[in-house]
Amino acid sequence: MKVSFDEAVRRASAALQRAGASAAMAESTARALVLAQAQGIGSHGLSRVAPYSVHLRNGRANGAAVASIAREHGAALLVDAKEGLAFPACELAVSRGIEIAKRLGVCFVGVTNSHHAGVLVDHLRPAAAAGLVGLGFANSPAAMPAAGGRHAVFGTNPVAAIFPRRGGDPLMIDLSLSEVARGKVAVAASKGEAIPAGWALDRDGRPTTDAKAALEGSMLPIGAATSTKGAMLALVVELLVTALTGAHHGAEASSFFVDEGNAPRIGQAFLLIDPGALAGRAVYDERIEALIAEMLVDEGVRLAGARRLELERKARTEGIEVPDAL
Amino acid sequence: MKVSFDEAVRRASAALQRAGASAAMAESTARALVLAQAQGIGSHGLSRVAPYSVHLRNGRANGAAVASIAREHGAALLVDAKEGLAFPACELAVSRGIEIAKRLGVCFVGVTNSHHAGVLVDHLRPAAAAGLVGLGFANSPAAMPAAGGRHAVFGTNPVAAIFPRRGGDPLMIDLSLSEVARGKVAVAASKGEAIPAGWALDRDGRPTTDAKAALEGSMLPIGAATSTKGAMLALVVELLVTALTGAHHGAEASSFFVDEGNAPRIGQAFLLIDPGALAGRAVYDERIEALIAEMLVDEGVRLAGARRLELERKARTEGIEVPDAL
Repeated sequence: MKVSFDEAVRRASAALQRAGASAAMAESTARALVLAQAQGIGSHGLSRVAPYSVHLRNGRANGAAVASIAREHGAALLVDAKEGLAFPACELAVSRGIEIAKRLGVCFVGVTNSHHAGVLVDHLRPAAAAGLVGLGFANSPAAMPAAGGRHAVFGTNPVAAIFPRRGGDPLMIDLSLSEVARGKVAVAASKGEAIPAGWALDRDGRPTTDAKAALEGSMLPIGAATSTKGAMLALVVELLVTALTGAHHGAEASSFFVDEGNAPRIGQAFLLIDPGALAGRAVYDERIEALIAEMLVDEGVRLAGARRLELERKARTEGIEVPDAL
Repeated sequence: MKVSFDEAVRRASAALQRAGASAAMAESTARALVLAQAQGIGSHGLSRVAPYSVHLRNGRANGAAVASIAREHGAALLVDAKEGLAFPACELAVSRGIEIAKRLGVCFVGVTNSHHAGVLVDHLRPAAAAGLVGLGFANSPAAMPAAGGRHAVFGTNPVAAIFPRRGGDPLMIDLSLSEVARGKVAVAASKGEAIPAGWALDRDGRPTTDAKAALEGSMLPIGAATSTKGAMLALVVELLVTALTGAHHGAEASSFFVDEGNAPRIGQAFLLIDPGALAGRAVYDERIEALIAEMLVDEGVRLAGARRLELERKARTEGIEVPDAL
């Protein structure tokens, strides 16, 4: 059934409140999930209402938590999600971070004791709307081995970035550091198909092209067939969001894909930068447009985030498909 | 011939001064190149004395330049390398950045009008020595296409990170975002050897295994066989170090591997973060050691940067092999 964007938010919010989320937590989470759905990112959209609700009911997320500022020192900020769903905490982190970056040019904000952050780059949209460049980092339950390792240590650890443009949509980059999403392996397994080398290890840490064995093992970081670079980037993200914030490592967090387990207490971090505090907004605008013009010389190039935003505009006009359960 | 670390620095510095570098620029550059050589990174070591000297003689680097602070606003800092070699500018950026991060918890510092930065993570060593976490970003002359593109737009755009450890060597991560270093293609071309598929495109944007054709074409970003993630990360780095600083895009900079061309005027950026301003140094120390312990459960895992530092210690004791020309 198709409903309006706002109606989809209301339904998702009501479902989360029935599972124990406060009105504020449910509203913030529902808005983020509907925004993901509107952009065609179903894996981070309304399909998450059910598992989040189970986590709320099972104590893996605390519906009564109120995220708060744990520490503020100059351009450094630490927000405590208090084991609630991640969205209100990330919202607080970025909104307060914007104020700091507007004053001091830069803000690095960490979020601790958190949960699944959804579409990471969406947290940065208010920063771009305020004229700031933003980077985002997050860890997730262990899914990938360290360089040279055999068991899962790091999450798929997404990295996001947003770059506002004068009079246009921001560039939006959002990617996880695994070679492919685990979902692709699941599809191959269900069809009885092999997967390419370089996607995954089996549960003994051996490279495998057997999709079923891969599902029991770990995913490989990007470029793992040739180098340890992807694993090194995952290490950097893991440390940024845990060592600086006190959050759990991926290896300490129970999977998001199971009902039972601990409060994951993972971490997120955002870096917000005001171009006006460095070379200035006029230089920034000229430089970004010059790079985009150079990129668009090749016909095959599409701007980062453009497809998502196009789908979102369509969904806001034509409505959102919501599951019957909502 | 093997000489002491300090003697190698003296010789490299003298050579750079003969090519027109000021004593300060030559000293800073020579120390960095010898440090790279000592760590076994020959491609960024003393082999660079000759091309840097040619660039100094040909006006592609200004030996008389004195890097200076172009802008300081809160936790944001902009350093102008003034078309000199990059090393004194990066040194100034990180040393002033450390002071700011110690006061405000965070500093983001950009370097504009710059040249080849050598081993990026080495610029962050003073930050780790001061107890700070550091990230580094740099662009370089265009070598890789944008996602979906056919011609080189981005540099191989290295990313570096350093994480200090209580009573131990810091973790040091340093990687370029190309599937392999262009140097590997150059070596294959000089030997008349083929390169593996997935490394490069020819000048018409077609995949190639011909090393000479690849040198005239472009390198592929990490993981390009499967996804656009490497290209997206390269875009993020390119914009961080140009749009915020005013530096040239890679596509505007002449290659480092030719004698003639423009002053590349590329950019670098460093992010310095004081763990003491977030969850605190005690939490930081516990979190990083817990992650390392988890990583080391697998016998094959080596800590990032450990091999380099081991080679460096050996070289500092046993001496450095220097080319006859020095």
